[in-house]
Amino acid sequence: MEGPLTIPVLDKGFVRLVDQMGDDRAIVQAARVSYGEGTKTVREDAALIDYLMRHRHTSPFEMVVFKFHVKAPIFVVRQWFRHRTASVNEISGRYSILKEEFYEPEAFRKQAKRNKQASEGALLDEEALALLRKVEQEAYGAYRALLEKGVAREMARMVLPLNLYTEFYWKQDLHNLFHFLKLRLAPEAQWEIRQYARAIAEIVKERVPLAWAAFEEHLLEGAFLSRTEL
Amino acid sequence: MEGPLTIPVLDKGFVRLVDQMGDDRAIVQAARVSYGEGTKTVREDAALIDYLMRHRHTSPFEMVVFKFHVKAPIFVVRQWFRHRTASVNEISGRYSILKEEFYEPEAFRKQAKRNKQASEGALLDEEALALLRKVEQEAYGAYRALLEKGVAREMARMVLPLNLYTEFYWKQDLHNLFHFLKLRLAPEAQWEIRQYARAIAEIVKERVPLAWAAFEEHLLEGAFLSRTEL
Amino acid sequence: MEGPLTIPVLDKGFVRLVDQMGDDRAIVQAARVSYGEGTKTVREDAALIDYLMRHRHTSPFEMVVFKFHVKAPIFVVRQWFRHRTASVNEISGRYSILKEEFYEPEAFRKQAKRNKQASEGALLDEEALALLRKVEQEAYGAYRALLEKGVAREMARMVLPLNLYTEFYWKQDLHNLFHFLKLRLAPEAQWEIRQYARAIAEIVKERVPLAWAAFEEHLLEGAFLSRTEL
Amino acid sequence: MEGPLTIPVLDKGFVRLVDQMGDDRAIVQAARVSYGEGTKTVREDAALIDYLMRHRHTSPFEMVVFKFHVKAPIFVVRQWFRHRTASVNEISGRYSILKEEFYEPEAFRKQAKRNKQASEGALLDEEALALLRKVEQEAYGAYRALLEKGVAREMARMVLPLNLYTEFYWKQDLHNLFHFLKLRLAPEAQWEIRQYARAIAEIVKERVPLAWAAFEEHLLEGAFLSRTEL
Ligand SMILES: Cc1cc2nc3c(=O)[nH]c(=O)nc-3n(C[C@H](O)[C@H](O)[C@H](O)COP(=O)(O)OP(=O)(O)OC[C@H]3O[C@@H](n4cnc5c(N)ncnc54)[C@H](O)[C@@H]3O)c2cc1C
Ligand SMILES: Cc1cc2nc3c(=O)[nH]c(=O)nc-3n(C[C@H](O)[C@H](O)[C@H](O)COP(=O)(O)OP(=O)(O)OC[C@H]3O[C@@H](n4cnc5c(N)ncnc54)[C@H](O)[C@@H]3O)c2cc1C
Ligand SMILES: Cc1cc2nc3c(=O)[nH]c(=O)nc-3n(C[C@H](O)[C@H](O)[C@H](O)COP(=O)(O)OP(=O)(O)OC[C@H]3O[C@@H](n4cnc5c(N)ncnc54)[C@H](O)[C@@H]3O)c2cc1C
Ligand SMILES: Cc1cc2nc3c(=O)[nH]c(=O)nc-3n(C[C@H](O)[C@H](O)[C@H](O)COP(=O)(O)OP(=O)(O)OC[C@H]3O[C@@H](n4cnc5c(N)ncnc54)[C@H](O)[C@@H]3O)c2cc1C
Repeated sequence: MEGPLTIPVLDKGFVRLVDQMGDDRAIVQAARVSYGEGTKTVREDAALIDYLMRHRHTSPFEMVVFKFHVKAPIFVVRQWFRHRTASVNEISGRYSILKEEFYEPEAFRKQAKRNKQASEGALLDEEALALLRKVEQEAYGAYRALLEKGVAREMARMVLPLNLYTEFYWKQDLHNLFHFLKLRLAPEAQWEIRQYARAIAEIVKERVPLAWAAFEEHLLEGAFLSRTEL
Repeated sequence: MEGPLTIPVLDKGFVRLVDQMGDDRAIVQAARVSYGEGTKTVREDAALIDYLMRHRHTSPFEMVVFKFHVKAPIFVVRQWFRHRTASVNEISGRYSILKEEFYEPEAFRKQAKRNKQASEGALLDEEALALLRKVEQEAYGAYRALLEKGVAREMARMVLPLNLYTEFYWKQDLHNLFHFLKLRLAPEAQWEIRQYARAIAEIVKERVPLAWAAFEEHLLEGAFLSRTEL
Repeated sequence: MEGPLTIPVLDKGFVRLVDQMGDDRAIVQAARVSYGEGTKTVREDAALIDYLMRHRHTSPFEMVVFKFHVKAPIFVVRQWFRHRTASVNEISGRYSILKEEFYEPEAFRKQAKRNKQASEGALLDEEALALLRKVEQEAYGAYRALLEKGVAREMARMVLPLNLYTEFYWKQDLHNLFHFLKLRLAPEAQWEIRQYARAIAEIVKERVPLAWAAFEEHLLEGAFLSRTEL
Repeated sequence: MEGPLTIPVLDKGFVRLVDQMGDDRAIVQAARVSYGEGTKTVREDAALIDYLMRHRHTSPFEMVVFKFHVKAPIFVVRQWFRHRTASVNEISGRYSILKEEFYEPEAFRKQAKRNKQASEGALLDEEALALLRKVEQEAYGAYRALLEKGVAREMARMVLPLNLYTEFYWKQDLHNLFHFLKLRLAPEAQWEIRQYARAIAEIVKERVPLAWAAFEEHLLEGAFLSRTEL
């Protein structure tokens, strides 16, 4: 690794590559255990990786692992941690006093008309941000007041809103990382988590270019047709 | 199943048994596949289950599955969903307007002196609850105001505090459920999640009495001694 | 459940449904936790299940669980147990004396010319089966002789060939069961494991007809087109 | 990594370290995300790792990953692959012709009298090995004959016995690797897989000495006392 790689996300968050095990060659190496052949040219490696992705031979992609340090708002992290194949270590709000750092969007989005689970277009309203800020101040003030009274940190934090930033380490193998990206780069995913998915994609793309190209071609930008659509 | 079984937890939450696959006999049945013997008396079943638990033969316990419907505050659910071996479906704050229901403790606990990650004793302070309530009102008011302005639900919810209630279905096999209980019934676990663990324990105990007895004897109330303590 | 349902597979194997948690309604029920709506008509249930499958909302399918008792040759089981999301209990060759039961195919298949990992066409050769039988006899005879000498069962079994039958319990949630079927019903899967996948498919289809229809339409018989194929 | 590290196991097998992500410091680093403190002295790192192991804070140990190349007999691999938290790539007997390499023990062990699932003592019998060798020759001869007839590799291999060697890549995080070692170093585990566990233990001990010391102290050589034993 050529030193840590950090990408800012949202107003105060980031994604930082902490460690990596294996690259494109590790995928090929593992696949060749199955097929019993030695190392080949880059061109042959690319073709093999493409073949594996196309035919959903996912196990060799599990042989590559990424570890990130992430800072993100709690409502994003709640979506993130539903992916159960990763390993996680998050800052403890029971152990530490949480910092006064909140996600404040550049623009608010409107509720989508058709899709009940989505947003669309920008909302031009100057009061919205003011409302958000007021809650942040009120909440963090109450948090501090409770701590000063001697309330346990684990209880005091109850007043903090879901746009508070938190931090965690996230370790994920490449197969499940692609699965995460497929779901979280999609337009149905909430805009905020999509920004994190993009930052991770940027790093992964640079680190495993052949695997990324295969993922883009066969999974990310492909389409599944149902029987009656064929 | 003799109809749903609901146990109230905290001020507005609950744990409700939705479904169950297998009971004590299913553990025995699966274990006897390995050992190749038929059904026996209850006494022999109890002895076998005890043996399996004592020797950490965990796979037969995976053959029993429980499904619960749970209502709990978000900060509790954040701890809960770190257990990755379960299946989960949670209410969507992107899809639905979240209800004005907050966890309000009967008493606040003090920050523990020795253990940085714990609480101890009751805090006698009438203002604490008032502070909490003020944040709830402010936050929910802002939530409603943002929604009225047309802000997307997925964004508006950002202002809501961590003591807001949410609901989810939770499906877990008995081996991992016992692991969850071992960690979340322990005194180191936050008091609030311990109340949920107790409610689940109560249901499980009634449903798989032999497995429960073995769990209590060999895992829950046993103790691990390190080499130098032996 | 209306009593156990057993389907014979290969010459001496079978798949038997042991237990089931939830059916089509359980999928709908879990999905409606997320979307916050009550029970509906069967037609609406079918539409919701179809929607969930089409959009790969897989978590509600995890809420349904099947448990099977299976008897299959070891080389099939070796492929089967690579699926890690299931729970398994297999008969122990360390504990019990393994029975003299071998898989003997009705016909041998030829090595495929193009696909190095496949077979094609029937091989008309009377000696093939005789060769197989000779090994079985020799091997089982040696097994018995070793046992008689007092060799531990765990060692004596080393001589037994991969077409020996074994038995196990297999518990799997419906999402991962569909994934198993997608991979093991495919023409690339070995013919023998495909017969087991078919038997399981038959049972599942009957038990969760709406989920099966959605699976068939959107996953099993659909096709993934890559970017450049679109 | 200072070059590959290979340890011979049994008569023809081996364990070879292929790659590693993180070492003792990575455990500390992840734990300190939770507790929000910086890097410390080796002594403090050792104390923290010991604390984490003692209190079963397992998530930081998941942040370290090992990848091995293993050659082992099929009956050992059958036990190995029951551990589902690893990633695996094994040589394909459908794709390649399997080599004539069989595990031949230096000595045969007797069936244990008390423990039905164990062996004990050496069996002094010159015929046992001869019996084993005869089956190997017969079986491999039949394998070759079937292949020559044009039988598909996936079918021909059915005649091969369980002591045939196979090879695979195995990627596992340190927490689950310790769990594997706890189970497979134990006297109840079959002697053959114990030799593999020892080889892995030797490598891991050298690579993460602090974590190993904590594992040995608190898990491997500790003892669990049941409630009534306390
Ligand atoms: C008192 C207490 C304090 C805590 N403090 C913190 C804290 O400060 N910071 C923090 O981040 N967390 C904290 N946690 C959470 C803790 O780190 C675990 O995430 C949580 O307890 C779930 O435990 P688990 O991993 O054993 O359970 P599960 O996720 O249910 O896993 C059970 C077992 O399955 C296997 N497994 C399942 N999924 C995977 C996977 N993806 N990869 C590898 N193995 C897997 C492992 O063997 C695991 O032990 C705390 C927990 C407790 C009880
Ligand atoms: C746009 C969008 C909307 C969503 N809306 C909702 C919602 O309204 N409500 C809601 O609850 N969730 C919602 N989710 C979350 C979703 O249900 C999944 O929990 C989440 O996307 C993680 O996906 P996963 O299970 O495939 O990933 P992972 O947990 O990483 O699992 C990957 C694969 O591993 C296997 N696996 C891992 N762990 C287990 C296990 N314990 N049991 C069985 N198999 C396992 C499965 O095959 C799984 O597909 C939404 C997700 C998206 C992307
Ligand atoms: C001495 C000995 C004798 C044995 N005898 C038999 C026998 O006779 N018959 C037999 O069938 N097996 C036998 N086993 C195998 C045993 O039942 C386990 O399958 C094996 O030891 C793997 O252990 P594990 O499940 O803890 O490991 P992993 O599969 O690595 O799992 C680690 C942890 O992760 C979680 N986890 C991972 N995957 C899942 C999942 N899909 N669902 C739920 N939780 C999951 C669980 O918490 C689990 O404890 C024996 C094992 C030993 C050591
Ligand atoms: C036609 C065919 C040919 C094959 N050839 C070979 C071969 O030559 N060599 C070979 O080694 N294998 C081969 N396999 C096996 C294949 O590599 C998979 O191991 C097997 O199909 C199981 O698939 P799975 O991992 O998707 O399933 P599961 O293990 O059930 O996993 C389902 C999903 O859960 C998640 N998951 C579960 N456990 C883990 C974990 N421990 N770590 C990370 N994610 C996890 C992943 O998202 C995974 O996709 C072949 C399979 C098929 C169908």
